Amino acid sequence: MTKVREIGEFGLIERLARIVPHEAGSAANGTGVRVAIGDDAAVWMPKPGAQQVITTDALIEGVHFDLQTTSWQDLGWKSLAVNLSDVGAMGAQPTLGLITLGLPQDADVADLEALYAGLDECARHWRVTIVGGDTVSAPVAMISVTVIGETTGQILRRSAGRPGDVLAVTGWTGLSGGGLRTLQSAGGVQQKSDPLVLAHLRPWPRVTEGALLAHTGVLCALDVSDGVRGDAAHICEQSGLGATIDVDRMPLHPALIERFGRDEALRLALDGGEDYELLCAGAAETITRAASSLDQETGTVLTPIGELRERRPEEPLVRLVDGQGRPVDLPGGSWDHFRA
Amino acid sequence: MTKVREIGEFGLIERLARIVPHEAGSAANGTGVRVAIGDDAAVWMPKPGAQQVITTDALIEGVHFDLQTTSWQDLGWKSLAVNLSDVGAMGAQPTLGLITLGLPQDADVADLEALYAGLDECARHWRVTIVGGDTVSAPVAMISVTVIGETTGQILRRSAGRPGDVLAVTGWTGLSGGGLRTLQSAGGVQQKSDPLVLAHLRPWPRVTEGALLAHTGVLCALDVSDGVRGDAAHICEQSGLGATIDVDRMPLHPALIERFGRDEALRLALDGGEDYELLCAGAAETITRAASSLDQETGTVLTPIGELRERRPEEPLVRLVDGQGRPVDLPGGSWDHFRA
Repeated sequence: MTKVREIGEFGLIERLARIVPHEAGSAANGTGVRVAIGDDAAVWMPKPGAQQVITTDALIEGVHFDLQTTSWQDLGWKSLAVNLSDVGAMGAQPTLGLITLGLPQDADVADLEALYAGLDECARHWRVTIVGGDTVSAPVAMISVTVIGETTGQILRRSAGRPGDVLAVTGWTGLSGGGLRTLQSAGGVQQKSDPLVLAHLRPWPRVTEGALLAHTGVLCALDVSDGVRGDAAHICEQSGLGATIDVDRMPLHPALIERFGRDEALRLALDGGEDYELLCAGAAETITRAASSLDQETGTVLTPIGELRERRPEEPLVRLVDGQGRPVDLPGGSWDHFRA
Repeated sequence: MTKVREIGEFGLIERLARIVPHEAGSAANGTGVRVAIGDDAAVWMPKPGAQQVITTDALIEGVHFDLQTTSWQDLGWKSLAVNLSDVGAMGAQPTLGLITLGLPQDADVADLEALYAGLDECARHWRVTIVGGDTVSAPVAMISVTVIGETTGQILRRSAGRPGDVLAVTGWTGLSGGGLRTLQSAGGVQQKSDPLVLAHLRPWPRVTEGALLAHTGVLCALDVSDGVRGDAAHICEQSGLGATIDVDRMPLHPALIERFGRDEALRLALDGGEDYELLCAGAAETITRAASSLDQETGTVLTPIGELRERRPEEPLVRLVDGQGRPVDLPGGSWDHFRA
């Protein structure tokens, strides 16, 4: 008998997706499902011209969060924010949210009100309406959030990378991973003024940035939840390409370098995960135009960090090089819940 | 500190809903959210004339299902069917589904493929496309399903009951509760030809029936998940009314009477839960028309079982009477996950 931990999360998704196939855009007028299993969110077109996206993400106590290091209010914020991030990574505007809570019977109502206060804070900021959900008894706390969004513009796809595309990332990565380590070593004491801790507890979904990327002609993006290296591999898998990342171009936040040193900061920036920045790919001039648009409209920096290329069987999917193009050997890779 | 078990599921939902208020149909053209927390599903209007509904329901191992009495394939069917039921109870057609699986690391891939085979079977029958979801590690198996639907017609609301409305129910209730007892006493042996066991393991969502109710002018309905008595109370709460149920008019399936006797069969029919039949209310002539339409189009029987009336403070929300109008004393009521 094959166990889930042997094939991992992505192996499992692939097997299960085969059982529920769908025909994309099957209706004559192009309405219907356009993107299904495998991207940040699913996309369908209920009417010609109007595209809707939907995404869902679950957080489980002891797996995705630890109530020693995360307050209920921060958990509320984060559980909605990670879903808004998926919608933003498709280039769409989130509109509605549904919340499913699983709770032990002895859960405190005040804690859940704090959770909802965090959800509400995040929902108000991005003008999302919480329209319902489900509340069930469960052995540990779990929160599953579904978000609907919409767009009339271009959808950003993981599979839309082209050889020669520049790979670029918004903001800084690695802060969330560094923040988690800081929280764990501080024994749960929260230091909310710390930019690393803040990045971990209150991720900022790049919704406006995703819409701007789509508007400036970028076609390929996803949000960085598994780490830049792991998520670059997702683009490669779905676009049928390889990628080169120039580690000397990786944006490293000064606070990350100061706390962990340059080498470990780079590792966190590549593999830390839960960054919820956007990783995108496009022609050089498109990325330049997108960077300028993001800078003007949001102040968010878009940094070119590498490129997509034809896949070479003898090389890893994502190759790390330094500024001189020399291979960099830095073991690591993507996070898998089932294999960890 | 107030615990969840002290205020129960509905008390909790009420408190949390206050934190995330919404303004219904706020846009000038009537687009926006039309039904939020408190009904079977949320409803919004992305464009004038087109209404979408969304619902989500989670099933947790040890709380909602027991793998001793439920196969993975049946679990797949049921987890989608209960969500289709919520969409059908709004009078809408389900279109898309999202699946979130929480799984222990040592889960068998073959079991999950069986789960998906059951999901797929149900999805094909009601022409629903599974478009994605999330797969996470969790201490016990859990499955959370979200379904989107759409309608251009009337939405069936819990709050749309009027004094004098006839209360009616589709099909038979109590079979699922009786099936669960049968499975438990058989020590997990599955008897799938048994109508009671089948009702429990493979509930049949009344999607076509919901659309027909809406089409014939019924305004008030919900699906029976908590039991006829508990769900009649939900209509009363949201419509600001009371209800009378004539126990002599409750449809009792012969197999239920045969196995449990008439008294216990009645109790199961009133309080068993997980029936996924539709309970609706409407003017007498509307219910007659709806019954005729259901009979012709689906063969499903719609049985009048009582009526809605002005609420009287000295009486219970849902009053049971016999065929002569005499009060019937039958302790029992709705199931609450947190208080059970």
